[in-house]
Amino acid sequence: MKTLKTQVAIIGAGPSGLLLGQLLNKQGISNVILERVTGDYVLGRIRAGILEQGFADLVREAGVAERMDAEGHVHEGVELSVNGERHRINLKELTGGDVVVCYGQVEITRDLMDARQAAKLETYYEASEVQPHDVKSDTPYITFKHGGEEYRLDCDYIAGCDGFHGVSRQTIPAELRTEHERVYPFGWLGLMADVPPCNEELIYAMSDRGFALASQRSLTRSRYYLQVPLTDKVEDWSDERFWDELKKRLPADVAANMQTGPSIEKSIAPLRSFVCEPMQYGNLFLVGDAAHIVPPTGAKGLNLAASDVATLYKILTRVYKNGDKDCISQYSEIALRRVWNGERFSWWMTNMMHDFEGEVSSTGMDPLMQKRFMQSELNYYLNSENGRKVIAEQYVGLPYEEPK
Amino acid sequence: MKTLKTQVAIIGAGPSGLLLGQLLNKQGISNVILERVTGDYVLGRIRAGILEQGFADLVREAGVAERMDAEGHVHEGVELSVNGERHRINLKELTGGDVVVCYGQVEITRDLMDARQAAKLETYYEASEVQPHDVKSDTPYITFKHGGEEYRLDCDYIAGCDGFHGVSRQTIPAELRTEHERVYPFGWLGLMADVPPCNEELIYAMSDRGFALASQRSLTRSRYYLQVPLTDKVEDWSDERFWDELKKRLPADVAANMQTGPSIEKSIAPLRSFVCEPMQYGNLFLVGDAAHIVPPTGAKGLNLAASDVATLYKILTRVYKNGDKDCISQYSEIALRRVWNGERFSWWMTNMMHDFEGEVSSTGMDPLMQKRFMQSELNYYLNSENGRKVIAEQYVGLPYEEPK
Repeated sequence: MKTLKTQVAIIGAGPSGLLLGQLLNKQGISNVILERVTGDYVLGRIRAGILEQGFADLVREAGVAERMDAEGHVHEGVELSVNGERHRINLKELTGGDVVVCYGQVEITRDLMDARQAAKLETYYEASEVQPHDVKSDTPYITFKHGGEEYRLDCDYIAGCDGFHGVSRQTIPAELRTEHERVYPFGWLGLMADVPPCNEELIYAMSDRGFALASQRSLTRSRYYLQVPLTDKVEDWSDERFWDELKKRLPADVAANMQTGPSIEKSIAPLRSFVCEPMQYGNLFLVGDAAHIVPPTGAKGLNLAASDVATLYKILTRVYKNGDKDCISQYSEIALRRVWNGERFSWWMTNMMHDFEGEVSSTGMDPLMQKRFMQSELNYYLNSENGRKVIAEQYVGLPYEEPK
Repeated sequence: MKTLKTQVAIIGAGPSGLLLGQLLNKQGISNVILERVTGDYVLGRIRAGILEQGFADLVREAGVAERMDAEGHVHEGVELSVNGERHRINLKELTGGDVVVCYGQVEITRDLMDARQAAKLETYYEASEVQPHDVKSDTPYITFKHGGEEYRLDCDYIAGCDGFHGVSRQTIPAELRTEHERVYPFGWLGLMADVPPCNEELIYAMSDRGFALASQRSLTRSRYYLQVPLTDKVEDWSDERFWDELKKRLPADVAANMQTGPSIEKSIAPLRSFVCEPMQYGNLFLVGDAAHIVPPTGAKGLNLAASDVATLYKILTRVYKNGDKDCISQYSEIALRRVWNGERFSWWMTNMMHDFEGEVSSTGMDPLMQKRFMQSELNYYLNSENGRKVIAEQYVGLPYEEPK
């Protein structure tokens, strides 16, 4: 068995693990990343594309923002459409200057990989049988296999950035964690196409036919979504049917000018809200999808992972720079506060914008009453300046909390 | 059978019916009120005491604000307490000048009764077997009995201000109305005592022991509430037990200085959200509790009745002054828009501030997750200035909508 040593072991080379590694390295804190699959496989995952103000700033702090700032598109607003009526949330004006950046998760990941390679930081791709040990002790370690060899990685701390299905969350004994879950009674059918976006900014569209989202990855690549029943299959949706339905759900003027084209990807994803409490067990920390999942409404998934990274980075920096070891115990509480805010915002956006017809609630309330509440919610929040500010300040992202 | 004639027949001499009658009379529109019980019985109902800015202004417009303005207390703020942590919502500052007036419903009713008597407007107390007829025609009428005599009241329009159990809503054929209802899994135990209030402003208190409200009717009369299980009986709650429990749910510094005393009234009320759609059937209009009920959290009940009155008053004034008969068809839509806003606000305040433990939801979400969402909601809304503005602007009341 080969033995390695580092200060922070990071499980997972997705954007969270890579960003954390980059930030720690800038502070002179050594780290090793273990990733189950290949780098190309990681880059093959098609995900989010809207970065909160704080996330974009964090990428700049990590020194990997060059391409993001050159190629990413600043969105100063976002639109909500209610049965064809367009409401623009002017993010910049309503928040006093904050915006979001449209830049694909794949691009961020690529930039971080390139930076890591350039800095010659250790990363083990295709590491199998990754297993944390003794995480409650001061001498945790991870065992894994790589290239036919067995390894042991000794470390001070372990960051579990290995996603919903990773080993990290499972390392917390089941009786010590609480998992909260809400599965929604519909899915999102996503389609990617190399056509210019139908609108400069994103459009979240609520309509009698269900929800739709007009999103984008760049000025030449569009990403669209439709709310569909969970029973639907991708094969049920030809490109033609998709575009037809999309046009019916988006505002008429947008639909009229929409460029369509062959799909380069098409898939159906279920929607879920998931939170694991706590996000910490001894010297193991859960980061991002390992601890929480949001429905994509509101684009909070990657952004919540980034805020976990920010929190852990700040805490570890304090530990190593100031010798403030007690600081470490704050991670779960600080991270969860922001996670619950993002979870709630995503849940609320999902509730307001989707059609829940057919879902029966046992709270003594008929689904139509729930619908009326949500219609009133949209009506109030979109027509009140205070309401629009509440949407805007949460959409650009609440500030990252400093450890005490 | 005696035959009477008026322009607007009003069923119910509660605050809504009386205020509508007063406002119409000021515009020279004749009206007759029919009330099932005696005036003293109406005055015996102990109800709300917080008037929105718009309601107070409407009372002034009706010319019956003299005592309200002299004896009522302007509240420039309201408090929300979360596990003992006090958060003041500065209504005046956050709304740019709006406030609420603390003045008992009983007092408003008395002032309106006095004004009606002084103006010698027709009111039939103890009118029985009140029954609207031909409300879809241009010649509706009401039959009733009074003092052993049978009456027929011919009119142009009928305002149903006769509460949840009144005849008005039932006059709309069941197949033409939709009734939405949410019954909450707890009740409010209320206690009235002639002791000075524990705080100048209201305190809505969320605690691990359940919700409590510190309210008041005047500087010498306090009104307190406790969330209790629906299975509790008033007899289970001695005054002593009530005060003890109340002190545990309110902020410690408030509890320490609270004056207690013998109850002059104590009762348990269930909490419900109820809306009937539409609020109009031909020339019959539902006003207030006849069409909607809110849980008392947020003090919207009487205020929503007042906004119905404002809407109907504006429409009827336009009908009689401008001959704009088409205007009449807007009543339900305009009234319902504001009703749903108030319903949603009350539902939201109730959801955020109460303990729902034990209620099982079938939406796939455990009650603990719902609780976390609501904790996060409180955390966000109380700590964000935009959030506090959203609470404040709804608490003082959204503006009344003008008919088109």
